[in-house]
Amino acid sequence: MKPVNVGICGLGTVGGGTLNVLIRNADEISRRAGRDILVSHIGMRNYKEGYDLSGVKVSADIFEVAKNPDVDVLVELIGGYEVALELVMTAIDHGKHVVTANKALIAEHGNEIFAAAHKKGVMIAFEAAVAGGIPIIKAIREGFSGNQINWLAGIINGTGNFILTEMRDKGRAFDDVLKEAQQLGYAEADPTFDVEGIDAAQKLCILSSIAFGIPLQFDRVYTQGISDITQKDVKYAEELGYRIKHLGIARRRNGGIELRVHPALIHKDQLLANVNGVMNAVMVHGDAVGPTLYYGAGAGSEPTASAVVADIVDVVRSLASSSDSRVPHLAFQPDKLSDVSILPIDETECGYYLRMEVLDQPGVMAKIAQILGEKDISIEAIIQKEPQIEGGEVSLILLTRKVLEKKMNSAIDAIESLDSTWGKVMKIRVEYLK
Amino acid sequence: MKPVNVGICGLGTVGGGTLNVLIRNADEISRRAGRDILVSHIGMRNYKEGYDLSGVKVSADIFEVAKNPDVDVLVELIGGYEVALELVMTAIDHGKHVVTANKALIAEHGNEIFAAAHKKGVMIAFEAAVAGGIPIIKAIREGFSGNQINWLAGIINGTGNFILTEMRDKGRAFDDVLKEAQQLGYAEADPTFDVEGIDAAQKLCILSSIAFGIPLQFDRVYTQGISDITQKDVKYAEELGYRIKHLGIARRRNGGIELRVHPALIHKDQLLANVNGVMNAVMVHGDAVGPTLYYGAGAGSEPTASAVVADIVDVVRSLASSSDSRVPHLAFQPDKLSDVSILPIDETECGYYLRMEVLDQPGVMAKIAQILGEKDISIEAIIQKEPQIEGGEVSLILLTRKVLEKKMNSAIDAIESLDSTWGKVMKIRVEYLK
Repeated sequence: MKPVNVGICGLGTVGGGTLNVLIRNADEISRRAGRDILVSHIGMRNYKEGYDLSGVKVSADIFEVAKNPDVDVLVELIGGYEVALELVMTAIDHGKHVVTANKALIAEHGNEIFAAAHKKGVMIAFEAAVAGGIPIIKAIREGFSGNQINWLAGIINGTGNFILTEMRDKGRAFDDVLKEAQQLGYAEADPTFDVEGIDAAQKLCILSSIAFGIPLQFDRVYTQGISDITQKDVKYAEELGYRIKHLGIARRRNGGIELRVHPALIHKDQLLANVNGVMNAVMVHGDAVGPTLYYGAGAGSEPTASAVVADIVDVVRSLASSSDSRVPHLAFQPDKLSDVSILPIDETECGYYLRMEVLDQPGVMAKIAQILGEKDISIEAIIQKEPQIEGGEVSLILLTRKVLEKKMNSAIDAIESLDSTWGKVMKIRVEYLK
Repeated sequence: MKPVNVGICGLGTVGGGTLNVLIRNADEISRRAGRDILVSHIGMRNYKEGYDLSGVKVSADIFEVAKNPDVDVLVELIGGYEVALELVMTAIDHGKHVVTANKALIAEHGNEIFAAAHKKGVMIAFEAAVAGGIPIIKAIREGFSGNQINWLAGIINGTGNFILTEMRDKGRAFDDVLKEAQQLGYAEADPTFDVEGIDAAQKLCILSSIAFGIPLQFDRVYTQGISDITQKDVKYAEELGYRIKHLGIARRRNGGIELRVHPALIHKDQLLANVNGVMNAVMVHGDAVGPTLYYGAGAGSEPTASAVVADIVDVVRSLASSSDSRVPHLAFQPDKLSDVSILPIDETECGYYLRMEVLDQPGVMAKIAQILGEKDISIEAIIQKEPQIEGGEVSLILLTRKVLEKKMNSAIDAIESLDSTWGKVMKIRVEYLK
């Protein structure tokens, strides 16, 4: 089958990430989509260096891309309102499917865009508009289609969460952290959009429509920012067992739906209270499924590109006819499965927790450390417990860095054969999740 | 359009939940799917009371359901291996799409089932086979199609996680908690399947195939249970800042893939370490998206039914031709959006954190408590800070139960007009996430 031609408009942070991901993972993506996906056109007003643009038609006029008969899917990554709207409408008029990461555009003009797309029979995909790389739109739209959704609550602005996390962890003041966030590039020079909750309100508007089946109503979202939160409140909340997070909340009530963005105290035992830094997370509660949570990077070049590319693959699958349009059972096309081997457990790598009973004698620890050192096993932490009776046996607990299982097993054999150790060594693997 | 007929085989925990959800949420589901979905046939060997079976053809022969020309989608919920395999193969032979929650069947016979389905042009959907209500298969299969997936790690057996959580929280012994889990119905009379990791290995096998594009290879999963974990190890791990969880891990390495199920220490700051009781969670790390996490109920009647019904809706959407088969932009069909109103902020409900500066005088707290009492506002917690100078002003912090915002605002007005309070009351909402 001939490749699908993608035209990207806007080669900023997300556009650049999308181009890079489509090139780097071209093979993996094609094995999943059943077709090659090519970036054939790029529209950017100012030429950007540093990208591999071989074979790509670059135009300074983004509308040229939207109208070009060779483009199958238009990816709108210019951001903003008016021009983006005109671009997307032009693409729809010309029968293109559209993928966009533009939350402002969807929240404020989604109803008219969807109506135009419906009329033309094209798709508008916008997973990247909410919570970056987390496939939250897909989860709610397709994963919970059996549920009446009761409520959802999310940390959906990374800048705000970064500021509140720093205020709590380091006792810093709001203004001070905001300045750093601006220097790090998390917050814009005009931070209103993030810290006053407008960005979160746009995302909440989109999520609530999908959850409850209501039209997009951005102007009905109650929106309050975090600039009033003081260090005092952060500390008192902590004393009460709570943390302050900036949440977007949509809740079904008798008589209507609550849509609100504001700071909120959440009990520290809740997973959502433990989502820190620039990370995003959304809880969704359905009447059948109960409480669920989705966590990941809510912004950034490649996390957002991850969602853009997933949308492109969805569109590409839908372009195929009948049964070829289906998602393959194992994600990849059946004739494209790989025969990469599964490693035997000896060849796997972990950290290790070791517990052993040793004689309370001088030199025991040295012998054990020597055995580990000979196998290149680094010790991360040690606990040695007091003996019950002097000179009796003591528990020695070691935590090691990552090492091949077979090396660890041969070290354990050597430790167990020492005169100064008792019985078997208890071995539990440690996952650093990195 | 005429309704889609669903035949359910097996009316146990998950089958009963599926029937209940399809009936209770019929309207919501139809608004999403674009067609009514009816349970037209049920196959069950032993008649079960307590369900609304009006208009349903009930048969004691499950194969009759699989062969019935009126059935469009067969839902296999009988569990087990041989009979389930024969049932699914019969349904495929008769051109039915199949939805199943049977992880054992997919892990051990998926390759042949998918091949047969591919030949016949029917779909096999199995979201409910892994992590119950969490749409983790959809997330990996469709949400991350732009990524090279590096690794995934999950708590994918609720019984095992319940046992480890109780051992840690209450200092109980493994055997003791296992007995309780059996009494609560979490663990089977023969608990091997759960505590020795076979159930988790089946799920890991499925997830890894979807993540890496490799055939299902259940017999290559290294599998170790939790029955060796002692109270001692749980405590020492805690001292080191770690928690012991039973994990399924799939990791891409040079030269091959690691597939292993075993207990593992995870640092307590990781979200995964804070997933407790019978809940499940899966972390997925993609090269573009970075680390992500999905959390929810991994088993149980309606959480699992949630995934079964989502699969049915996916199948139903794919039955429609061309553009009608697409997932609607806002999840619900464009002509089925609801005009339910968005509540003004005055009509929303929250708990509240209030901070106020009050004079350090007798009777101040009584006045404030009286104002709150008159508005039916219950106090959940109070902190009163020592004054800097005797008789000066002190900070008073209150946490309230849920109340209407307008009631809270009028109470705040009354508090602010007291002679004994200073300036404005700081109000932050509290979300109990229930």
